Amino acid sequence: MSFDPIAFCKGTYEDDSLEAGLCLSFATTNKLLIATGVGGGGSNGGGIVSFEEISTGLNVFFLLFAASFIFMMQTGFAMLCAGSIRQKNVKNIMLKNILDSCIGAIGFWSVGYAFAFGGASPDTKSFIGYEGFFLANVTSGTELISWFFQFAMACTAATIVAGTVAERCKMEAYLCYSLFLSGFVYPVIVHSVWSESGFLSAFNDNPPFGCGMHDFAGSGVIHLTGGVTALLAAKILGPRIGRFYDRNGIEIEDPKPFPPHSVALQVLGTFILWLGWYGFNPGSILTISSINSGDVAALAAVNTTIAAASGCLSAMLIDMLIYRRETGETAYDITMVMNGTLCGLVAITAGCATVAPWGAMVIGIVAGWVYYLWSNLLVKFKIDDAVDAIPVHLGGGSWGCIAVGLLSEPTRTAKAFGDHGHYGWFYMWGQGSGDGRLLAAQICGVLWIITWVCAIMTPLFLLLKQLDLFRVDELEEEVGCDFSHHKGFAYDSSGVPDDDTLEKFKLDRSAHQLEISQRRGTPAKPKNNGERKPKSVVPSDAEQDAPVVVAAQDQAEEDVA
Amino acid sequence: MSFDPIAFCKGTYEDDSLEAGLCLSFATTNKLLIATGVGGGGSNGGGIVSFEEISTGLNVFFLLFAASFIFMMQTGFAMLCAGSIRQKNVKNIMLKNILDSCIGAIGFWSVGYAFAFGGASPDTKSFIGYEGFFLANVTSGTELISWFFQFAMACTAATIVAGTVAERCKMEAYLCYSLFLSGFVYPVIVHSVWSESGFLSAFNDNPPFGCGMHDFAGSGVIHLTGGVTALLAAKILGPRIGRFYDRNGIEIEDPKPFPPHSVALQVLGTFILWLGWYGFNPGSILTISSINSGDVAALAAVNTTIAAASGCLSAMLIDMLIYRRETGETAYDITMVMNGTLCGLVAITAGCATVAPWGAMVIGIVAGWVYYLWSNLLVKFKIDDAVDAIPVHLGGGSWGCIAVGLLSEPTRTAKAFGDHGHYGWFYMWGQGSGDGRLLAAQICGVLWIITWVCAIMTPLFLLLKQLDLFRVDELEEEVGCDFSHHKGFAYDSSGVPDDDTLEKFKLDRSAHQLEISQRRGTPAKPKNNGERKPKSVVPSDAEQDAPVVVAAQDQAEEDVA
Amino acid sequence: MSFDPIAFCKGTYEDDSLEAGLCLSFATTNKLLIATGVGGGGSNGGGIVSFEEISTGLNVFFLLFAASFIFMMQTGFAMLCAGSIRQKNVKNIMLKNILDSCIGAIGFWSVGYAFAFGGASPDTKSFIGYEGFFLANVTSGTELISWFFQFAMACTAATIVAGTVAERCKMEAYLCYSLFLSGFVYPVIVHSVWSESGFLSAFNDNPPFGCGMHDFAGSGVIHLTGGVTALLAAKILGPRIGRFYDRNGIEIEDPKPFPPHSVALQVLGTFILWLGWYGFNPGSILTISSINSGDVAALAAVNTTIAAASGCLSAMLIDMLIYRRETGETAYDITMVMNGTLCGLVAITAGCATVAPWGAMVIGIVAGWVYYLWSNLLVKFKIDDAVDAIPVHLGGGSWGCIAVGLLSEPTRTAKAFGDHGHYGWFYMWGQGSGDGRLLAAQICGVLWIITWVCAIMTPLFLLLKQLDLFRVDELEEEVGCDFSHHKGFAYDSSGVPDDDTLEKFKLDRSAHQLEISQRRGTPAKPKNNGERKPKSVVPSDAEQDAPVVVAAQDQAEEDVA
Repeated sequence: MSFDPIAFCKGTYEDDSLEAGLCLSFATTNKLLIATGVGGGGSNGGGIVSFEEISTGLNVFFLLFAASFIFMMQTGFAMLCAGSIRQKNVKNIMLKNILDSCIGAIGFWSVGYAFAFGGASPDTKSFIGYEGFFLANVTSGTELISWFFQFAMACTAATIVAGTVAERCKMEAYLCYSLFLSGFVYPVIVHSVWSESGFLSAFNDNPPFGCGMHDFAGSGVIHLTGGVTALLAAKILGPRIGRFYDRNGIEIEDPKPFPPHSVALQVLGTFILWLGWYGFNPGSILTISSINSGDVAALAAVNTTIAAASGCLSAMLIDMLIYRRETGETAYDITMVMNGTLCGLVAITAGCATVAPWGAMVIGIVAGWVYYLWSNLLVKFKIDDAVDAIPVHLGGGSWGCIAVGLLSEPTRTAKAFGDHGHYGWFYMWGQGSGDGRLLAAQICGVLWIITWVCAIMTPLFLLLKQLDLFRVDELEEEVGCDFSHHKGFAYDSSGVPDDDTLEKFKLDRSAHQLEISQRRGTPAKPKNNGERKPKSVVPSDAEQDAPVVVAAQDQAEEDVA
Repeated sequence: MSFDPIAFCKGTYEDDSLEAGLCLSFATTNKLLIATGVGGGGSNGGGIVSFEEISTGLNVFFLLFAASFIFMMQTGFAMLCAGSIRQKNVKNIMLKNILDSCIGAIGFWSVGYAFAFGGASPDTKSFIGYEGFFLANVTSGTELISWFFQFAMACTAATIVAGTVAERCKMEAYLCYSLFLSGFVYPVIVHSVWSESGFLSAFNDNPPFGCGMHDFAGSGVIHLTGGVTALLAAKILGPRIGRFYDRNGIEIEDPKPFPPHSVALQVLGTFILWLGWYGFNPGSILTISSINSGDVAALAAVNTTIAAASGCLSAMLIDMLIYRRETGETAYDITMVMNGTLCGLVAITAGCATVAPWGAMVIGIVAGWVYYLWSNLLVKFKIDDAVDAIPVHLGGGSWGCIAVGLLSEPTRTAKAFGDHGHYGWFYMWGQGSGDGRLLAAQICGVLWIITWVCAIMTPLFLLLKQLDLFRVDELEEEVGCDFSHHKGFAYDSSGVPDDDTLEKFKLDRSAHQLEISQRRGTPAKPKNNGERKPKSVVPSDAEQDAPVVVAAQDQAEEDVA
Repeated sequence: MSFDPIAFCKGTYEDDSLEAGLCLSFATTNKLLIATGVGGGGSNGGGIVSFEEISTGLNVFFLLFAASFIFMMQTGFAMLCAGSIRQKNVKNIMLKNILDSCIGAIGFWSVGYAFAFGGASPDTKSFIGYEGFFLANVTSGTELISWFFQFAMACTAATIVAGTVAERCKMEAYLCYSLFLSGFVYPVIVHSVWSESGFLSAFNDNPPFGCGMHDFAGSGVIHLTGGVTALLAAKILGPRIGRFYDRNGIEIEDPKPFPPHSVALQVLGTFILWLGWYGFNPGSILTISSINSGDVAALAAVNTTIAAASGCLSAMLIDMLIYRRETGETAYDITMVMNGTLCGLVAITAGCATVAPWGAMVIGIVAGWVYYLWSNLLVKFKIDDAVDAIPVHLGGGSWGCIAVGLLSEPTRTAKAFGDHGHYGWFYMWGQGSGDGRLLAAQICGVLWIITWVCAIMTPLFLLLKQLDLFRVDELEEEVGCDFSHHKGFAYDSSGVPDDDTLEKFKLDRSAHQLEISQRRGTPAKPKNNGERKPKSVVPSDAEQDAPVVVAAQDQAEEDVA
């Protein structure tokens, strides 16, 4: 049997031919294709693997990483929300945050994922998916991890709402809208924008406006959806007692802000959210096994950073300047800093992979102003948002979608969405073209999301209100949901010893010290000579140890006598 | 010299032959094998790499990621435990949590890892490993990162115990059992189940029952070990004063629960633990450079999510229903939500890679009930668990191991453990077979772990008790370990300014404002006009600014006069 | 056209030749090179990829992971600093921590990165970089993610300073030095040590001492820089009122430590920092697509763990022993535990990739002592460090750099920095050589960093002081920066219901329960029978429910009557 190089190279040989054997030999001997397993528990060890093997594993790993970071954002929301409200409702809001993940998991596993992505194909269009309920028969790692990633994203939409309606929304209403949102309303939006069959999708063979809506990581799909729902809920539910109206419904002259009970928790939450965004935005490229994916993911990380920083500084400065003009004092408001950061992050979510870094800065700066404006508008219209989630997610989300239509840069857009010839309006304009198709697609997307959410959620909320299931009663609101619905308050200091016990303990210990020092023949040292313990944490009343020691000595001497 | 295609392909050529040169040229020129280093500090740059190169690096990275997430769980345990107890012992429990990592590191580096994995081979069986103490001479990244991964897992077992015996266990006893547990008791269990030479190991050539124990990520190896140790310790140590018996040892009619001092810390801890589980479970496949590994890791992530969610909802609902039946009130208990979630996570740990998603839901639902049952049993038997770790880890861990014997799905099990023909009993039964070997292996595993831990730890705890090293004295318990052993309490508000200072400051600032406004010729505005600062955080007593400003004006006018 | 195997292999064929076609066919047909995209939103799908593709993507992912973990350290610093100070300055320090990231992002994007790495080449030397301002025209993922990684590192240097000068530094001064540090001072140091053109760089073709400074992940570049700046700032700014001198400037006999306001936040921060170090140290290899990179990263993770654990135990034990000798009491100081851990981590940062695990233990143990010594020295010299950052970062950082010159192991050093023949002095000594070149390079590096920082920052701080921009006035310091500059305090408990409201609510609920029970015909159960709710969180005053229920019954019966 002679060797046929052409058949060898073209692969047009039989499975048991010389060429086939040579191919395997070539691969094996030259160690091109041997992957070594790390070995140990659960591994199936080495063997010959192809690029497909290694890139599949790598991509699963990438989405595992990204989804875990997105899931971390639930922690961030929980801390931010809990810190922002009064401490009598801490358990209530945190409970809801945990349940968001749990209900989201069950809802998205059973029907949500199927509605969002089931049976999609780029050559058709459909309103909703219809395959893959309960992940039945799915064993491919690629698809399973894709579910995990999409689940993590889905949870966030519901969580946004929970913060806004905190301190007054009934658990029953919460459970109801939360399941409905993550199981149906949100999946339909996902399907329309991200599924290959979506009517606004950039991944369809025939996208609207020739490019479809470009919402890379979900400024619109996730944040705008959550923000609009939150606005509807806040409007229908009404403000907390004492915020704009007093107990008797009479308008308060100056709206009374309820200060956050713990800024430390708020800041913790903000940082965790920012961190989670590094899974959210770069992860939305979904694969990392190519140079192109790497370029997109890296750009997303850079833009995310720059927009967050710009949003922070922009909101802080505008607040500082206006406040100084009004009061003559210079104050740096940490609420502005936190929410400006978050609004910058929300706004860059749509365009993180398609705008240049300077574009990210522009998006962030404007996002800071957008936050400031929306936040004041809500107060003006007496809409009570317990955590200012509406300005951040509705304001930032809608701005982010539209900004893509203005600032999307050609080469970067081509990397992320393929080259279709329609980019940010500023770039088209710079090229002397009036092509505003991408901008039009973005505006359509925003309007579609607002319309859909309003059309579905308004009746639901009104029904809940009608059935008296939406809002806790006045007395419950006043004592706080923690006491009325969750068996007690979130903080408890009942275990702290009283002064008598402390005194008794000090006496006891002094006597013990005396005993030791008498055995040693040296005088007992007082406990707190301070000099060498720069960070000792003895509470202030322990400063009076010295006299106690003396007293103990006296007593001990009496005992001896 | 002529070209020999057969030698070229088979690799049967000399190192300096034409074929060898061609092979290199082929690889280089066609850019098949060029990996580009990212360059910069520490990198050795590009060059030709084989698949082995890239997959080794990838797998090191995967375990670095997974182990870091597992290490994060220490933070979760610290926050959960600290939040669950009374605030007079916060420093004590957090100190122990940090030390768990430190002692675990030293113990596992010096002897633990060698005992667990040293000198293992699938063709022999041994009780304990005996090679690789202090990681001597190990320079392979694969092995080093494997140590890091196993270290992170080892820390958790000791941490579980620390929570249960909080508020009354002496530091000396803690240091003693902690080192012993992570350096010897736990490694022996790891060796038996996960080492290739383990007598229960599924990775041995000749596993017991033809399949060995399937504990993918450690429901038994880690959580059951920790849980059983915790139960022994709690029983021997006795309950905290005032929990079931008063100061004089007289039984209290209604056991008095000690409320957690901070639910916020508890929730933070729970979320971090859940997050860490995404390193724990998917990471236990140990490699990610193949499609198979990717499938297993992805399934683990999905199942982890679904079991956590199911456990949460199941525990919350059963508690709500029973509570409502008893009291007529509807309350949602956040403790149930948190511990139900954790119990679901513990239970899915063994089977995350081998059951179908619906199986994960079943495991989670039952885990919620298991938690509820165990938690009530402990109260009934007057065993005091300060953080309810026993119900979660012992209850969830044993259920998780047994559930694998019932629900392990054939194709998924084949991916994770190889195809050996023995699966979950329900599946075997569905196929008309009575084969319960996997179930038998699981039950044996559970019994082995319980027996081994009891046999070793009971004498140790009894000895500690005998030597009076186990429990702090009554007075120390009453003042709390923070004051008696750690130089003071965990929280301190001594720095807050008194009212006089605040008043003085406001006066000073008002005068300053007045000065500015006089310069400008406009009247000083009061500081808090509220309208435009929806989230300003001025404390309530600052509401009285206006009169202060007036007073300041008066005073300033007097000064002028 | 005949097939030319030599041209085929050597790649010396035309693009449209038979050989070119065959090469493609070979690759495609034999599935050697097919990478499968995970598909879905944003992906460009499969196609033929080379190793370069997959390794580029992998390396971007690796740095995304590492940089995210480093970014997480900002959260850790924020929590640690906030917990360490008095609660009247919590908002102030947290605000600064967020701003560190934001200012760092803008400063490092605009000029810092260009100064640090711009236009570097191993065959020249330069003082500062000069290319790549604003990341203009950068679209390569490799370079973008490198910026993200370096940005995350840059933020930490500024953050270190913020902690030390907490509670008394003006916002204006902070904004000023922070931008200056991250935009200029720090980049120059980075350039000198890590850029290929740096005059101390190990990556230059002609490094000083034949090896250059080995600072793998930045004990010197980052921590020493931050630590020296902090020392200068603390010295020039002066101590907080009441720490060493009272309000009138009279020396206090025993320096008064200000206890941390929340140990829980401190511990949370410490754990997050430790966790972040697993991005910091292993990530500094910058690529993970080769066995060598894997070896280095894995070693870094192991050494990081062992040094942290050793530092913790070493600092705790030395403090315990000295404290016991002085007072006769055994106390375990959690401050020592936390800062010992951090000092161990800082110290291993330089040598994590080049010392053996036992070397890491030595470095950690000494780091614990170094911390203890520096901490006491600062008190002796009356330098007030609000969070003990100087001992950790200056002490640990300088020790870490020098330790590399002593303990750097030959084979491991060769893997991380290339084989240049100069290693740790102990190893050279063991080989009978007196070669101390690496040690000399390390000492030079430490001196260079100290000199440069002092030369630039001293005038800046003195200028700020001269302009009265550095320190808040006495009254502001006393009320705390939160009230004086940030609109109010960080914690607020104004929302807690008063006792009357609680009573009213209980009465209301009891009446409701009675109604239900009367409908059912069973007697109302008291709310708190306790027995079955082991972890119910009802506050203590709810224990008096039973009489309330009776009262409610009475009232209800009266109502009926």
